[in-house]
Amino acid sequence: MSAGWFRRRFLPGGPLPEPRPAGPRSSPVPYHRPRFLRGSGSSPGATDASRRPDARPVRSPARGRTLPWNAGYAEVINAEKSEFNEDQAACGKLCIRRCEFGIEEDQEWLTVCPEEFLTGHYWALFDGHGGPAAAILAANTLHSCLRRQLEAVVEGVMATQPPMHLSGRCVCPSDPQFVEEKGIRAEDLVIGALENAFQECDDVIGRELEASGQVGGCTALVAVFLQGKLYVANAGDSRAILVRRHEIRLLSSEFTPETERQRIQQLAFTYPELLAGEFTRLEFPRRLKGDDLGQKVLFRDHHMRGWSYKRVEKSDLKYPLIHGQGRQARLLGTLAVSRGLGDHQLRVLDTNIQLKPFLLSIPQVTVLDVDQLAVQEDDVVVMATDGLWDVLSNEQVALLVRSFLTGNQEDDPHRFSELAKMLVHNTQGEDSGATGEGQVSYDDVSVFVIPLCSQAPEGSGH
Amino acid sequence: MSAGWFRRRFLPGGPLPEPRPAGPRSSPVPYHRPRFLRGSGSSPGATDASRRPDARPVRSPARGRTLPWNAGYAEVINAEKSEFNEDQAACGKLCIRRCEFGIEEDQEWLTVCPEEFLTGHYWALFDGHGGPAAAILAANTLHSCLRRQLEAVVEGVMATQPPMHLSGRCVCPSDPQFVEEKGIRAEDLVIGALENAFQECDDVIGRELEASGQVGGCTALVAVFLQGKLYVANAGDSRAILVRRHEIRLLSSEFTPETERQRIQQLAFTYPELLAGEFTRLEFPRRLKGDDLGQKVLFRDHHMRGWSYKRVEKSDLKYPLIHGQGRQARLLGTLAVSRGLGDHQLRVLDTNIQLKPFLLSIPQVTVLDVDQLAVQEDDVVVMATDGLWDVLSNEQVALLVRSFLTGNQEDDPHRFSELAKMLVHNTQGEDSGATGEGQVSYDDVSVFVIPLCSQAPEGSGH
Repeated sequence: MSAGWFRRRFLPGGPLPEPRPAGPRSSPVPYHRPRFLRGSGSSPGATDASRRPDARPVRSPARGRTLPWNAGYAEVINAEKSEFNEDQAACGKLCIRRCEFGIEEDQEWLTVCPEEFLTGHYWALFDGHGGPAAAILAANTLHSCLRRQLEAVVEGVMATQPPMHLSGRCVCPSDPQFVEEKGIRAEDLVIGALENAFQECDDVIGRELEASGQVGGCTALVAVFLQGKLYVANAGDSRAILVRRHEIRLLSSEFTPETERQRIQQLAFTYPELLAGEFTRLEFPRRLKGDDLGQKVLFRDHHMRGWSYKRVEKSDLKYPLIHGQGRQARLLGTLAVSRGLGDHQLRVLDTNIQLKPFLLSIPQVTVLDVDQLAVQEDDVVVMATDGLWDVLSNEQVALLVRSFLTGNQEDDPHRFSELAKMLVHNTQGEDSGATGEGQVSYDDVSVFVIPLCSQAPEGSGH
Repeated sequence: MSAGWFRRRFLPGGPLPEPRPAGPRSSPVPYHRPRFLRGSGSSPGATDASRRPDARPVRSPARGRTLPWNAGYAEVINAEKSEFNEDQAACGKLCIRRCEFGIEEDQEWLTVCPEEFLTGHYWALFDGHGGPAAAILAANTLHSCLRRQLEAVVEGVMATQPPMHLSGRCVCPSDPQFVEEKGIRAEDLVIGALENAFQECDDVIGRELEASGQVGGCTALVAVFLQGKLYVANAGDSRAILVRRHEIRLLSSEFTPETERQRIQQLAFTYPELLAGEFTRLEFPRRLKGDDLGQKVLFRDHHMRGWSYKRVEKSDLKYPLIHGQGRQARLLGTLAVSRGLGDHQLRVLDTNIQLKPFLLSIPQVTVLDVDQLAVQEDDVVVMATDGLWDVLSNEQVALLVRSFLTGNQEDDPHRFSELAKMLVHNTQGEDSGATGEGQVSYDDVSVFVIPLCSQAPEGSGH
């Protein structure tokens, strides 16, 4: 199999990069600039993620344990990173130890050999803010959390129908029927494992950041191919889409202060002390000022999808909990995303108001049944950080993908990497003739292009 | 225009009706059994809802005021109600007083004449539980709340773009641009008015029930046709669908303990005291028992869409916050719906545990742009309480609708009422040959059939 990854940031000399929304821009973690990393091996196990050439010297949450993880099999291109590497990525084979029903989890594992693993593939993008620390920790940690979570339920994942009891024992004869009626399938255990892995990783990052005196947060977009299905888990504003000859399908949706307005306002309604009297939870079309006092203006509260009018009181003049539109929208004037990892210490500038209570580390998981898809040679999933989607629409990306793959031979092993490169170039004002737009991104841009046809035969095995 | 409404309950002699989930079945409100009510007038204003022949002798929240409401223009068939009338319905013309920018709301209204009204049409179904009181109050009240809410924002509703200030004054020159950037349209004010009207109505019902010593709650499904658009607001498990020759479109989704599991579990997580130590907020495929202690069983918590395994502790053996599957699913062992009106006093049997904190009165609102639909003669919206949808799928209803309308002449003014009747009959084991299923509903069944082609020319005017 092959997959293409490319990232780039607008280089010095051009327009100034847009400021990131949160936290200090300098960080105690030194940046690195590996240009190209290309692996070769494909055997599972034996390679520790922390020994990947691009791994950061942070403490591993799986110290002293050999991880069944190999980042070396896939072609990875990693060039022209931003100064502080706020985007990070990881990909590799995911090897989950199989276990038979009834074998206790703390029992010694037998000799490591491929037959004892359920294998999958893993791709992840992390877009950092307030420094690269959280994104680096996530790139080094999340796959381990996921592997642990999957190993904890692997018997259920591999069963035709997950058993009520993980031991396989049947306490009540109707248990299979209860599980059947709830519609619980093996894929629900993978979704649960992804949800729990994000939470576990967030806890690890919180502890690591505190212990090392670092700060920062990151979004996380993860794709996992396992048993014929592609799981896309997203917490933040990155995006994954499926591009086929006659179809574009969204595989994720973005979580920003705007898309999660009602959840965030609801929380401020439940716990008004979180705003410390400094913010108003109400949304208005613009920030109100003295002249608006006493007038009836457009507003909406947590329970409203629609709009109404209210008479402006003094407390409505406070800074809004969510302010600004589109890419400018900020939570508590600080953060542009509402889900992600890290940010445990993040506070509103010059105040003690914390952002973390408003942030969710739980991803939304979408499942693509690749085995049912009648996959064609040029069907790909494009995963990218917001830097790409800010300047290219889904339709423009699909157009570029189709036109590139049509013009590049199928036997070129690097064509998906080249495609990822081309997409990034396209956000830099280069090759923009293809879309006729020529909008330029000043943000970090990272792109994975995952060909689906190479997943089905290899990935669905164990 | 014409619309058809029909309701029916399985009559004594057949199988026993399924017990309603909550509250006492007897009620201090005497039941009534009007068989047929057919109106004729079509002029707006002057008719008070409380003077409708089927209105209940409850106190009107709009005492001493003549409501611009007329229930008499539409054909209404109301036959064979259930003993306690737990289903209620209302329909009529909605007349909203227009007001120019800058005219204060408390100013005397000028002589009533049609030009001063923005008119729409209103249909509503209320499926009561724990007695008919809340459903009757809702049928008599909600349209008044909606009219008030719409009158409060009518200048914005009628403007091309709602102004930032209801007065029309422009405090900041960029105000129209701010409103434009937020994408606020006139329809958002109607959605907001519907959301607020449901809340206001719920407050009124709470006060009225308390004052009269009555109990009960109801679901609410409302359709409003206004300025070329059909707004469908739903709080509960009734359903509205659009049926066209080659299309079936859902216009509402159901709110039950199952569909709102995460919201309900989240609330119990935030306020564990709401469960008084009697319930577990976790979901399991079945209720756990002593034999499960110490085993790892399937479960999910508020943050999970997927499933995982947990080791069973003693507290997991408590009765689950949400229990049962499908139609049997109950909130706190009591209620089958998670949104609606009323239920202010409802408690879990023999405890002091309240259900109201878990219930939302806010509807979800769907907008159908009828003017953009290229409406055909036989395009209809079918609104019905759960009694219909429990035994007929959307596809079966669409099949029945199409076949009935094809076989019945377009010039029959009663054909939509006859269609509604036929749909109800079909849930009673009559005419079931049409679907080949013959499933029988033991619940109340109420159906509106709203032809769209009669809306566009008349309803879009003022």
